[in-house]
Amino acid sequence: MIIKRGDSVLVMSPDEKTYLVTVDEGKRMGTHLGDLDLGKAIGTEYGSVIETNLLHPFILLEPTLEDRIMKVKRLTQIIYPKDSALMVMKTGLGAGMRVVECGSGSGAMTIALANAVAPTGKVYTYDRSEKFLENARKNVEHSGFSEFVEFKLREVWEGFDEEGVDAVFLDLPSPWDGIPAAYRALRGGGRIASISPTYNQVERCVEFLEREGFVFLETVEVLVRNIRVSTGKTRPMDRMVSHTGFLTFGRKALRRAETGV
Amino acid sequence: MIIKRGDSVLVMSPDEKTYLVTVDEGKRMGTHLGDLDLGKAIGTEYGSVIETNLLHPFILLEPTLEDRIMKVKRLTQIIYPKDSALMVMKTGLGAGMRVVECGSGSGAMTIALANAVAPTGKVYTYDRSEKFLENARKNVEHSGFSEFVEFKLREVWEGFDEEGVDAVFLDLPSPWDGIPAAYRALRGGGRIASISPTYNQVERCVEFLEREGFVFLETVEVLVRNIRVSTGKTRPMDRMVSHTGFLTFGRKALRRAETGV
Amino acid sequence: MIIKRGDSVLVMSPDEKTYLVTVDEGKRMGTHLGDLDLGKAIGTEYGSVIETNLLHPFILLEPTLEDRIMKVKRLTQIIYPKDSALMVMKTGLGAGMRVVECGSGSGAMTIALANAVAPTGKVYTYDRSEKFLENARKNVEHSGFSEFVEFKLREVWEGFDEEGVDAVFLDLPSPWDGIPAAYRALRGGGRIASISPTYNQVERCVEFLEREGFVFLETVEVLVRNIRVSTGKTRPMDRMVSHTGFLTFGRKALRRAETGV
Amino acid sequence: MIIKRGDSVLVMSPDEKTYLVTVDEGKRMGTHLGDLDLGKAIGTEYGSVIETNLLHPFILLEPTLEDRIMKVKRLTQIIYPKDSALMVMKTGLGAGMRVVECGSGSGAMTIALANAVAPTGKVYTYDRSEKFLENARKNVEHSGFSEFVEFKLREVWEGFDEEGVDAVFLDLPSPWDGIPAAYRALRGGGRIASISPTYNQVERCVEFLEREGFVFLETVEVLVRNIRVSTGKTRPMDRMVSHTGFLTFGRKALRRAETGV
Repeated sequence: MIIKRGDSVLVMSPDEKTYLVTVDEGKRMGTHLGDLDLGKAIGTEYGSVIETNLLHPFILLEPTLEDRIMKVKRLTQIIYPKDSALMVMKTGLGAGMRVVECGSGSGAMTIALANAVAPTGKVYTYDRSEKFLENARKNVEHSGFSEFVEFKLREVWEGFDEEGVDAVFLDLPSPWDGIPAAYRALRGGGRIASISPTYNQVERCVEFLEREGFVFLETVEVLVRNIRVSTGKTRPMDRMVSHTGFLTFGRKALRRAETGV
Repeated sequence: MIIKRGDSVLVMSPDEKTYLVTVDEGKRMGTHLGDLDLGKAIGTEYGSVIETNLLHPFILLEPTLEDRIMKVKRLTQIIYPKDSALMVMKTGLGAGMRVVECGSGSGAMTIALANAVAPTGKVYTYDRSEKFLENARKNVEHSGFSEFVEFKLREVWEGFDEEGVDAVFLDLPSPWDGIPAAYRALRGGGRIASISPTYNQVERCVEFLEREGFVFLETVEVLVRNIRVSTGKTRPMDRMVSHTGFLTFGRKALRRAETGV
Repeated sequence: MIIKRGDSVLVMSPDEKTYLVTVDEGKRMGTHLGDLDLGKAIGTEYGSVIETNLLHPFILLEPTLEDRIMKVKRLTQIIYPKDSALMVMKTGLGAGMRVVECGSGSGAMTIALANAVAPTGKVYTYDRSEKFLENARKNVEHSGFSEFVEFKLREVWEGFDEEGVDAVFLDLPSPWDGIPAAYRALRGGGRIASISPTYNQVERCVEFLEREGFVFLETVEVLVRNIRVSTGKTRPMDRMVSHTGFLTFGRKALRRAETGV
Repeated sequence: MIIKRGDSVLVMSPDEKTYLVTVDEGKRMGTHLGDLDLGKAIGTEYGSVIETNLLHPFILLEPTLEDRIMKVKRLTQIIYPKDSALMVMKTGLGAGMRVVECGSGSGAMTIALANAVAPTGKVYTYDRSEKFLENARKNVEHSGFSEFVEFKLREVWEGFDEEGVDAVFLDLPSPWDGIPAAYRALRGGGRIASISPTYNQVERCVEFLEREGFVFLETVEVLVRNIRVSTGKTRPMDRMVSHTGFLTFGRKALRRAETGV
């Protein structure tokens, strides 16, 4: 793949620092190892090397989904790739699905969802804060997924506009506030996923999920441990992120009245 | 979504045992809570309930990606959803991508890859064992992803047929055997992911990746801990899977000769 | 050290199965690898080998503190060595200290405490169940620590007889029931440690500790992960104990009225 | 217990910062909350409160074993209490035992060992560096355990002077260098414990232990996860120490020639 003017490129220094930049003719970038002429990237293939004026080689990489998520402008805590990856897997997302997200936060999860349902699905993402929604919209645009996402300014108790969606994702201080609306928006068998940092939220969330008619409930936490691999001295890293949030999953069972069985 | 004859349905008992079955007129299934007439499922919506002859309610759920992965017929150790989810995320898979997998094993990872690149991408999966490849093919067929997968019987050192692919996935006892072929098959900036159970494999794999020209190397392990949520007595589960494999990631940097820069 | 008649010996088979037995003249033990004449152990040094009638070598080892703890007869869930080790460390136990334990359970923690305060300290252990207390007493006797332990049949709300003790250990379904009594029994600056399986218990326990006047509160969980070491194929074990209990620690601050400062 | 002139006291501020200080008449200590007159501590009981000139209350606590270990002056990486606690437990240390340690490092582990074998046992601690040994000696003195420790300046391959010891502790870059000497120093059935940060060290260490005649080998790592307990918002801490070292344990089996059986 050839890099074009206007592309987002992940530039990596020899000491593995990365910068997400938009390349353009004549655009220069200062680094700790000298100045880079980003125009030189245009027309090269990803994986190529360009040098600073001090002759340090920088590699031009295509930003992955994870890079885009980690580089969003953060006005809120974001959902990390370790968590969004499992949320996408356990809700079984795939191309063509229609999903609701509430709240949008900084749009990090929105990007993961949009990637999972593209090119034929849609993410409807709700937030009560105009400021957050606007920032999320810019982050999603910047990541190139805008056409798969619709942004809506709304309080959670006002409900969602959609019906028959495949999955609902909740990232709310009081996730239980969104559970009735999620039930209504989902199709039979549709999946719900909620992320919360505290045990207390999880406990209350599960109570409400059971009461509302969700089944197959499961709560997990994901720990990713980095290994420092080096011949003859390989070991786990000294420090790690030990907690982001608990993930709770469920599926919508239909009530007797609704099934007609 | 309405259940049709021939659909794979995940049937869940009141005590949350699940069975992946194909529904058909007149098909009956014995359970520990009585007999189920699976024909009754046809024409109902997912999320509906049917009862055994002993009046126990069973819920009809749509199998998610994770359900399909966990229910493949296993002739080999499989890659678990916790790992395949992060592998898909960190390699940045999305609709339309072309990826190589080696070896196919029982096809569990193949299903995760096919779901991620559908409906416009393709998975080329290689295995040296005819028996494993045949089983993987059946598992992928059963999961409904056949049109996105091509199966190839091949020893890893014979290389891959594809060029310019977006990502290569290695699940081999000697992953280093596949690294030169992976480098050739990948486009510039393309991603590689390898899974291995031992630290010795990881160490050697990383040595070969560095030597071949892969950059941005990272090795992690994923731990998923289940929480037993119950009002007033919420706690982590007593036992967990503490190890499946180490995941190693990298990206293809072009060599000077290839970049022409 | 020479093995004498009546000693508890940990006998280990070639496949690393262990048996805690009392040796005596003429005493025989059946194993999966033939019969052992335990009388042959008498007069040998620990670390020696005796053979079954089928010539399989069994090694005679001295039971460690951990062996004794793990081999107690269990009428209750026990506190595991990974937890009791940290509880002993963080409360700073040493020879000569006087400590209160409530409840005794099966006496596993009692043994760890007795070992830590021997040869000049004392453990006062309380339980409300005569049956458990009797079993704990036998387990402690069998481990050889009886002289450092006093057993008391008592409901926790009746309080403890001791004053000015160095530490109090609580292993109760409602640890808060023991907190006022613990405060009274402790000397200024004395330590408290409580173990509970659920986060709800921990939360309430910490509330009561704060209210009662304990400071420097800390709650942790201990995870021990086993590594399977084998040249060229070293890896973490597949499965582990992922939860036993949360450990909460605190120290007694004196109230204004008591300090006279 | 009453605080006397010259005692080491752990002074805790209202915001839970701790300082390990020696109290004396007229000694003053500056803090972020004003000046403390440490002389006021003399004659009060541990757990008492003294105030700064700005009337902020500081609590006077007795330093526990953990406090003393964590406050040693560090010229080297130290063995953390989470690890030394399990090492003491799994080697079964108790009053009266004689143990060898190599190397002394900053003496953190030496203090844990001395506490475990006091008041009748002895720790023989070896280090090749005069500077480290001198620092360790001062740290042990400061902690009050000097009478139970003997310091020896020695290269590990020169062996240990002691025979028939109960346990040997190795904290060496090449732990295998100390294994033959450890075997000779230990009594039959005696325990060995080694700590190393890398898998590679562990693998080689286990090879040498097996070859030398140690049995019942076990390698583990200890993870301690802190929980932030707060009514209604209890959760694991965000970050943790994810690796210090792997702990390897074994026991000395006697060779045929030595047992005479």
